[in-house]
Amino acid sequence: MKPVNRFLVGSCKLPLTGDPHVERVTFEDRNCSVARSVDVLGDWWNLLIVRELLWGATKFDEFQRNLEISKGILSKRLKLLQDYGIVVKHTVGSGTEYALTEKGRALHVIIIAMLQWGDKWNPLAEGAPLIPVNRKTGAPLAPVKLADLNGEPLELKDLGLIVGPGADETTRERLDRLRQAAQQKAAASR
Amino acid sequence: MKPVNRFLVGSCKLPLTGDPHVERVTFEDRNCSVARSVDVLGDWWNLLIVRELLWGATKFDEFQRNLEISKGILSKRLKLLQDYGIVVKHTVGSGTEYALTEKGRALHVIIIAMLQWGDKWNPLAEGAPLIPVNRKTGAPLAPVKLADLNGEPLELKDLGLIVGPGADETTRERLDRLRQAAQQKAAASR
Repeated sequence: MKPVNRFLVGSCKLPLTGDPHVERVTFEDRNCSVARSVDVLGDWWNLLIVRELLWGATKFDEFQRNLEISKGILSKRLKLLQDYGIVVKHTVGSGTEYALTEKGRALHVIIIAMLQWGDKWNPLAEGAPLIPVNRKTGAPLAPVKLADLNGEPLELKDLGLIVGPGADETTRERLDRLRQAAQQKAAASR
Repeated sequence: MKPVNRFLVGSCKLPLTGDPHVERVTFEDRNCSVARSVDVLGDWWNLLIVRELLWGATKFDEFQRNLEISKGILSKRLKLLQDYGIVVKHTVGSGTEYALTEKGRALHVIIIAMLQWGDKWNPLAEGAPLIPVNRKTGAPLAPVKLADLNGEPLELKDLGLIVGPGADETTRERLDRLRQAAQQKAAASR
């Protein structure tokens, strides 16, 4: 199947069913990896707790002080992050410390992409508060770019989407519908 | 100033002041580009609306059907996304269509990073529903990787952080504190 004329095609139905555990809507139809990530991450608090751990904070009190989050919300979010295998808790001396699992550490790409988007599109007048660098050389990070498996860099216009093995009927139909719309638009502009 | 021994250092204080516009906490102390991005994106609905636009949806009814979101919430989120310069509204024939601005299109890197994280760490049993590809060649995308400005690929362990021109006193202090903690840890392990 050929890539379509739009960037992404799929379906994520998001029923407004309350989940007492995370106190927000859940994404029951998971035929979309973006929505599934959203579901696991729960809410922005979770991502900011992950950021705290990436920044070197390890203790409950540190998270609470840095995020100015209530103890109750922080406890729930840490529990959720452990349930999802993103965070582990361990005893160090007489205290408890938290750390990221490999699954949690893998979120650093998302967090760096958000930091760079913020610095570029919503900057402080004074400039970036923090600059991520190559620790060995001090060279600043390049903006995160997409590339294909052959190493060719890709802009948004170069991206297509094909259905994968996990696509359901709704996703396939939506892909077809958008392909037809793109073909009609192309035909109309000829 | 040299990079520290941890990935990211900074400060994001998040007072629990209600913002009637977005119905969530706001991030008054913006000395952190991640939190500033979180603030602009508002909540996950906003990111999923951006995803809808990237996938080729352009109309209110399409967003509503695909996201199963209430009209009221969708209207508020679209208004917010316009206020932030992420989405523009324009009249096409007798109808209204929405499109992403350059600022909005720049979010595609974050969304692809979330899609890839979901496919790797929270996969469907059947496999990925959708596979992003190079439209010209059909080659699948590589996992999003970080690199420095010299093109050197970077893992999480290679990342450091230095204070930027926008760092406030809290950010500087926190950076110093974590550097000291890292040095003590290194000294203790010798």
